[in-house]
Amino acid sequence: MDITVAVDAMGGDHGPHVTVPAALQALKQDAEINIVLVGLAEVIEAELAAHHAKVGPRLRIHHASEVVTMDESPQSALKNKKDSSMRVAINLVKSGEAHACVSAGNTGALMATARFVLKTLPGIDRPAIAATLPSRKGLTYMLDLGANADCTPEHLLQFAIMGAMLVSCVEHKERPTVGLLNIGSEDIKGNEVVKQAGELLRASHLNFYGNIEGNDIYKGTTDLVVCDGFVGNVALKTSEGLAQMMGSFLGQEFKRNWMTKIMALAAMPVLKAFRKRLDHRRYNGASFLGLRGIVVKSHGGADTFAFLHAINVASEESRSGVLKRITEQLEIEHIKPASASQLPAETTKELA
Amino acid sequence: MDITVAVDAMGGDHGPHVTVPAALQALKQDAEINIVLVGLAEVIEAELAAHHAKVGPRLRIHHASEVVTMDESPQSALKNKKDSSMRVAINLVKSGEAHACVSAGNTGALMATARFVLKTLPGIDRPAIAATLPSRKGLTYMLDLGANADCTPEHLLQFAIMGAMLVSCVEHKERPTVGLLNIGSEDIKGNEVVKQAGELLRASHLNFYGNIEGNDIYKGTTDLVVCDGFVGNVALKTSEGLAQMMGSFLGQEFKRNWMTKIMALAAMPVLKAFRKRLDHRRYNGASFLGLRGIVVKSHGGADTFAFLHAINVASEESRSGVLKRITEQLEIEHIKPASASQLPAETTKELA
Repeated sequence: MDITVAVDAMGGDHGPHVTVPAALQALKQDAEINIVLVGLAEVIEAELAAHHAKVGPRLRIHHASEVVTMDESPQSALKNKKDSSMRVAINLVKSGEAHACVSAGNTGALMATARFVLKTLPGIDRPAIAATLPSRKGLTYMLDLGANADCTPEHLLQFAIMGAMLVSCVEHKERPTVGLLNIGSEDIKGNEVVKQAGELLRASHLNFYGNIEGNDIYKGTTDLVVCDGFVGNVALKTSEGLAQMMGSFLGQEFKRNWMTKIMALAAMPVLKAFRKRLDHRRYNGASFLGLRGIVVKSHGGADTFAFLHAINVASEESRSGVLKRITEQLEIEHIKPASASQLPAETTKELA
Repeated sequence: MDITVAVDAMGGDHGPHVTVPAALQALKQDAEINIVLVGLAEVIEAELAAHHAKVGPRLRIHHASEVVTMDESPQSALKNKKDSSMRVAINLVKSGEAHACVSAGNTGALMATARFVLKTLPGIDRPAIAATLPSRKGLTYMLDLGANADCTPEHLLQFAIMGAMLVSCVEHKERPTVGLLNIGSEDIKGNEVVKQAGELLRASHLNFYGNIEGNDIYKGTTDLVVCDGFVGNVALKTSEGLAQMMGSFLGQEFKRNWMTKIMALAAMPVLKAFRKRLDHRRYNGASFLGLRGIVVKSHGGADTFAFLHAINVASEESRSGVLKRITEQLEIEHIKPASASQLPAETTKELA
């Protein structure tokens, strides 16, 4: 099945210097992929020329005259940048010209624009951010990683449904296990929201494992870890900080004196293999779930290798039919669109 | 200044096999420390004999006929084990016979018993668990690590005051920096509780740095990190899981074949130095803050080296006058005992 991915060519710290070569790599690796590079046509053309590449049947340029900056507020991006590369890439998904879009632009602006343009799926109150982390058993999927700081038990149930269907489709696991991130394994543990979410999950048709704790993320106890965006973001950032510190400590110990430096040389191949296993670039590409379209967010500082991975996440999600599976499962769980009165004005308008 | 520490000799996975030799080590290292070993006198005497040690002016045994098991509920421990080693050790603090107590027994039972026997300090609604984590700059103190899953902004302010005074006393820093764990640095970030806690902290006399993110814990951006017990526990357990996985990956890479095994031998001194820097035993000993007495919780699986560290945490807290400093700072911040109507029945009784 042919997949067309719209790439926000201008987003991220490095813009076209990274997005364009990554797109070219994707075309080379995957014969079923087509790419639309969205952004300032002249800049993209120059970057293509630098790589001795040209547009063709599988590679198009779609001009967009504006760029959302990395520190721009979501409000400003929404209001003032209607022809931004980010927004136009999302528009292509909305119009059906692309199956998915990828951007390394700023998270807040991307989420706000995606939500405004694409709207949420029926039965989903709020989109969530899902990504993969390495585990002893392979990969752990986790959401929400920061889109929703305050959540109700119903939100956590919706996250679980979306995340489980994502794992089911992309990892080809019929009934992935779902863990609820908590501070103890017993049902009575945790804060009020999590306790009630546990009850909803036990009553659902998902393969609910029960409560898990922070260390289970890396043990790989469950395929999916569900939590609110505050807790998820703290867990993710804490992990980044610890991994960086451990890497830096290891480096310092090996650089202590000439003897340890020789040891470092000797151990280099092993250290390289170790670093490769934990290379965060291999986990780049967070899925915005709950929208009527596929949007993947790349890390802003991604290099070509990492951005290529984000493109692959987007194409894999389209190919495996995640949106359809989520919609079907929401029906199985009898999750109806929330009553208008419970929703803020903006969302109510969306559903009207 | 002479310090007497009551040691729950029966607590933890290893009981007297660990607590007794750790107590003997503490006596040897620190001439100003006295220890009361609390528990089954016969068992403790046998363990002392095995180490060719005897009671004397600096080492006493205080018999307690019961033991709280590691999986016993706090309710059961409180109701049925009034002569447990854990409770008697806390009683010694209450009566003034000891300045502090240390237990490796189960956290829930220890917290419930400590709170019941010692009561909270005036102005403190709930005790919190504080501990240290390694950082690039040395140590980061963090609380709450799991005692309170649901917190109000006022609780977070109280945690900040207690934690800052702990750091001030133990680390001899006049005005330690306080960071509020959040999911972004701007004031408008985070959930409702954290936003309001930020306002309270800005209005306080503490050296408030502002919002910090998960990675700042290990960067050492602030001396103290404040969060609710749910988030703190997840961050701590996630860190444990990641460190274990990274250690295991490193081990696997070095064991891959005979060549990598030789490299491991060559790199052994460096790997040992690296492991030592992250050795969790050096961070053992969590302080229960907010009680009218000093209670330190050791990890249940602690070995002698780790338990010794917990004893040192307890003696250092007494020596540096943490309780007095917390009480003084609560007055400076004009934090009065909560009105009786806001508190659950049990706490109201305590204040009556």
